Amino acid sequence: MPLAGYLADKKKLIEQYLDGYLPKNQEFPAEIHQAMRYSLFASGKRLRPILALAACEAVGGEIKSVLPLACSLELIHTYSLIHDDLPAMDNDDFRRGQPSNHKKFGEAIAILAGDALLTQAFALLSIPTDLSAALQLQIIQEAAAAAGSMGLIGGQVLDIQTSGNINRVFGQMDAPLLEYIHTHKTGVLFRAAVRIGAIAGKAAPEQLSAITGYGDKIGLAFQITDDILDLECTTQELGKPQGSDMAAHKLTYPAVWGIQAAREQSQLLLEKACRDLDIFAGKAVVLKDIAGYLLNRRE
Amino acid sequence: MPLAGYLADKKKLIEQYLDGYLPKNQEFPAEIHQAMRYSLFASGKRLRPILALAACEAVGGEIKSVLPLACSLELIHTYSLIHDDLPAMDNDDFRRGQPSNHKKFGEAIAILAGDALLTQAFALLSIPTDLSAALQLQIIQEAAAAAGSMGLIGGQVLDIQTSGNINRVFGQMDAPLLEYIHTHKTGVLFRAAVRIGAIAGKAAPEQLSAITGYGDKIGLAFQITDDILDLECTTQELGKPQGSDMAAHKLTYPAVWGIQAAREQSQLLLEKACRDLDIFAGKAVVLKDIAGYLLNRRE
Repeated sequence: MPLAGYLADKKKLIEQYLDGYLPKNQEFPAEIHQAMRYSLFASGKRLRPILALAACEAVGGEIKSVLPLACSLELIHTYSLIHDDLPAMDNDDFRRGQPSNHKKFGEAIAILAGDALLTQAFALLSIPTDLSAALQLQIIQEAAAAAGSMGLIGGQVLDIQTSGNINRVFGQMDAPLLEYIHTHKTGVLFRAAVRIGAIAGKAAPEQLSAITGYGDKIGLAFQITDDILDLECTTQELGKPQGSDMAAHKLTYPAVWGIQAAREQSQLLLEKACRDLDIFAGKAVVLKDIAGYLLNRRE
Repeated sequence: MPLAGYLADKKKLIEQYLDGYLPKNQEFPAEIHQAMRYSLFASGKRLRPILALAACEAVGGEIKSVLPLACSLELIHTYSLIHDDLPAMDNDDFRRGQPSNHKKFGEAIAILAGDALLTQAFALLSIPTDLSAALQLQIIQEAAAAAGSMGLIGGQVLDIQTSGNINRVFGQMDAPLLEYIHTHKTGVLFRAAVRIGAIAGKAAPEQLSAITGYGDKIGLAFQITDDILDLECTTQELGKPQGSDMAAHKLTYPAVWGIQAAREQSQLLLEKACRDLDIFAGKAVVLKDIAGYLLNRRE
């Protein structure tokens, strides 16, 4: 199946599952459920859960067992976007082409909607599946470590601490900080996604290790591409104002290394990511195709 | 052992565990770990984890297996306090006698510290213990449901929606909303605490049911007492300004029913809570003593 069809199929599967799982808009208290659904169903690409499904298939596992666990990653991702957009953080008024959660529902509800999506992710991760309970505990640990103060949250802390000073010019001495932000703010969830998929598919140790290397590299490449797109794409393509990273004086890959080096680095990482998958022979075609798709995306 | 000694012993055990478990102040990124520890180690009573331990003992379980799970409740409780104090929520400058988290670390770090404590709670809940993995998944589900949009967060949503309108006079028609706020904002974590302790202690169904009834009633009594203390205690005793609920025009038990009826209701609930424990004969002395302590506390 060509990749576009695979992505569309899996996106539909994920969105159907999430729609069935999450409390409906009218469930009491309605406003919190409306706010949760508003951001969750705002046309995301569902890349993290798709990666978990594809990794599970690559090691010979079944989609059915991993689907709920994969979907929890989208809840974590959406919570992080809502909180990152808050006035006290990046103060972004738009996200995915619509007003950000706090612009629509107010700050208090936006904070609580993020909290609730994060909590719901762990509720979902702990519903018994046909995997062993011990394996499922291991998967919850992966998700919690990725989302925690030394993962996603750590990346956001550094992102905030390094941005906003308009007199600061970034240079190569900022490279270690930049790498920390990228690998933590974005990389950890990509890594967790493919690892969770592989663990659920009962990957052998060398398979898990190869998949982890792939996840780390595509996560970093994804963020570098994001930084480039912020500079090159139109506001309409991005769903948020063009150049908002530069306006906020964010520590980005192009800001430190220049846009040409950023493009080359992203390409190189994706090639290396695909080489990590060579041990799977023909079984990781989808994961390799996703790497190619991430490089050439325009949104 | 007299209750004061029991509470002091268990509080020490819990704080030692949490201190050993949480990333240290200097661990990178240091600011987030400082912020997490600042609020977590700000002289809490550790009631929720103590209740989990006592419930586990009442059904014949061992403290050792339930301690990490019990401590996760304190992480959830502390996260909820940090987020509740934010300017967009209750806008409280003081908590437990010291500046609230956002006054000390700024709003962005306070939001992230709350997020990180919530995430860390689930990391802790998923570390394998000597309980079966299936039982542990069940405990994670209890915690996630209690903390979610139909638990703790639902209570906070209603608390925000009903407060702040200084022209509004509360009356008996607000009683259903008040009960929703109390049972969700406070009750759910008390209920989860005793249930988690009882489940970890392998409670029989009728034991779990009795303990749940007890947890619901003391949770509600605790919140009613909190409302009364807010009116009666000094700022020093409370660690936050006296009368702050009234100033924020909060929907409280005394505001709807008057202070005398509030006192009687609280007493009645605690008596009923103790009767729920009669099936344990002598084994629930500590839980009964805690009910008495909750009624007579001054902080």
